[in-house]
Amino acid sequence: MHRIIDCHGHYTTTPPGVAAWRDAQKAAVAADAAFVGEKGALAVTDDEIRESLESAQLAFQRERGSDLTIFSPRASWMAHHIGNEHTSRFWTEHQNELIRRVCDLYPDNFAPACQLPQSPGASIDGSVHELRRCIDEMGFIGCNVNPDPSGGFWTGPPLFDRYWWPLWEAMIELDVPAMIHVSAACNRSFHTTGSHYLGADTTAFMQALASGFMADFPGLRWIIPHGGGAVPYHWGRFTGMAADQGWDFDALLDHIWFDTCVYHQPGIDLLLDVVPTENVLFASEMVGAVRGVNPDTGRHYDDTRVYLDASSLDDDGRRLVFEENARKVFPRLELP
Amino acid sequence: MHRIIDCHGHYTTTPPGVAAWRDAQKAAVAADAAFVGEKGALAVTDDEIRESLESAQLAFQRERGSDLTIFSPRASWMAHHIGNEHTSRFWTEHQNELIRRVCDLYPDNFAPACQLPQSPGASIDGSVHELRRCIDEMGFIGCNVNPDPSGGFWTGPPLFDRYWWPLWEAMIELDVPAMIHVSAACNRSFHTTGSHYLGADTTAFMQALASGFMADFPGLRWIIPHGGGAVPYHWGRFTGMAADQGWDFDALLDHIWFDTCVYHQPGIDLLLDVVPTENVLFASEMVGAVRGVNPDTGRHYDDTRVYLDASSLDDDGRRLVFEENARKVFPRLELP
Repeated sequence: MHRIIDCHGHYTTTPPGVAAWRDAQKAAVAADAAFVGEKGALAVTDDEIRESLESAQLAFQRERGSDLTIFSPRASWMAHHIGNEHTSRFWTEHQNELIRRVCDLYPDNFAPACQLPQSPGASIDGSVHELRRCIDEMGFIGCNVNPDPSGGFWTGPPLFDRYWWPLWEAMIELDVPAMIHVSAACNRSFHTTGSHYLGADTTAFMQALASGFMADFPGLRWIIPHGGGAVPYHWGRFTGMAADQGWDFDALLDHIWFDTCVYHQPGIDLLLDVVPTENVLFASEMVGAVRGVNPDTGRHYDDTRVYLDASSLDDDGRRLVFEENARKVFPRLELP
Repeated sequence: MHRIIDCHGHYTTTPPGVAAWRDAQKAAVAADAAFVGEKGALAVTDDEIRESLESAQLAFQRERGSDLTIFSPRASWMAHHIGNEHTSRFWTEHQNELIRRVCDLYPDNFAPACQLPQSPGASIDGSVHELRRCIDEMGFIGCNVNPDPSGGFWTGPPLFDRYWWPLWEAMIELDVPAMIHVSAACNRSFHTTGSHYLGADTTAFMQALASGFMADFPGLRWIIPHGGGAVPYHWGRFTGMAADQGWDFDALLDHIWFDTCVYHQPGIDLLLDVVPTENVLFASEMVGAVRGVNPDTGRHYDDTRVYLDASSLDDDGRRLVFEENARKVFPRLELP
């Protein structure tokens, strides 16, 4: 048999002390864009953390039979467009330290991935610094990288730009992957979890495909979340464009994995049909964007294991998608 | 039997006089952003038009057995972010008049849809004026609306904003639909036909779903191109979010159709599986973003009829997708 590793979970159910700290910081930067302030402390007890998880992520793990979730701070709350590099750093440090506490309380259930203190216009060095702190000092196994810290205006450098190279180099050195995951949209054209997330997933993939830059970074590994945005559904479009343009589609798949956060059976079936099984990682993103029950299954929309179980994946494929691919992508993952 | 109506074709193979006119205009606005200039004339002969189509769109129509293409100016060349409302108007008028000439030369093969002289920050009135000119005076049957005239920065009003209402009202009065189709991206984060098109499709759908604004415009009809971007692949996500939030997903489907510009069999199968057959319109977007041959079919990637023919659509479904849905969405379409 195999374990079931969920590679995509965020701490979306944090105790009230987290929002309180952030709200105060947001109020301060709204009043003064150059506000720095102090890191201070989150008013969050271990009991509150337990309570916030026992009734949610842990209950779902038990109910759905998953073993371990790679757990990172709430993606929509990263909000790198708010404040400046100093406030982003304090906020990020708190969020990552909170994830560490979660994983210390439940080492069998969660493994930590960090957010980074990105900020529009800021050097990437602060993110590299926090990545090293999390991996080297705090035992994290991966990170989330926001490809659009502007929050939906896409005014920063694309992922193939040399701006990002120190981060890619550090990830390779530390042997950790990144999930390429945007945060909340502050552009009213976009709905955060509806259009911004999915558009960003497709955009990140396309930046890698058209630039070919990943070939220069052997060992660089990305997870494209939410089933890869629009990519698998348009697999023919992307492979066909690659053939037209001379882009090396197959080589890209040495670097990119797609998660299974697709919330209906036909979508999962398509994902498994077109994407090589070696490039698919089980994930649910619970508790996340969709919280209701799918009338087609009688289970939560984000109970993606139900779709995987009903798919045509054979035993070898299941082992890859549920466990082995994740162990390959996250070599620092230590299973209980 | 039924006809085969392709609802999505652009004049991507224009004679050189078109690019020459536009290049001169672009050079002038690059030198002076307030440049107005004159409309002048396109140096394009009827023979050049025939030649540009006979070896391309018309040849493919014959080879693939489609009857008629709803034909509009090249989408990536609309480039509403270039110049100003005056230059956009001259360019748009030329492009639309060229489409009229195409349809006069080949009335059995093409039916005209127009672009609009959108321009960032400009009133929508100019677009309403051009829409009326094209529909009332020139016999057009539909239009293309660019949801992001900024070219990938999304700095304009979303489609639910009252900015757009005069256009929606005119479309309803004239009984014509809009294909919601962006143009070239000038934001280097995006690849025009790879990520910008697909992201915009999802974004437009999401703007309609979350706002619910279309309920206030009975008879307003949109086509979401490129198979609806990421929407069908994430049907569970969107229906689940709608259930969570109280958005009326079913009512939206009175207003929205998806085309079949999805260039592989599993994608078309998924589209037909999840989207009601009444909401799917046959399309290929040839000659367009992907021009090579799909090794899985031995046919061009964009020969989407091959995928439809191999799908599980029954005869009733085929009649809807290939002809009847298009006649309902485009009531001004007169078939030979």
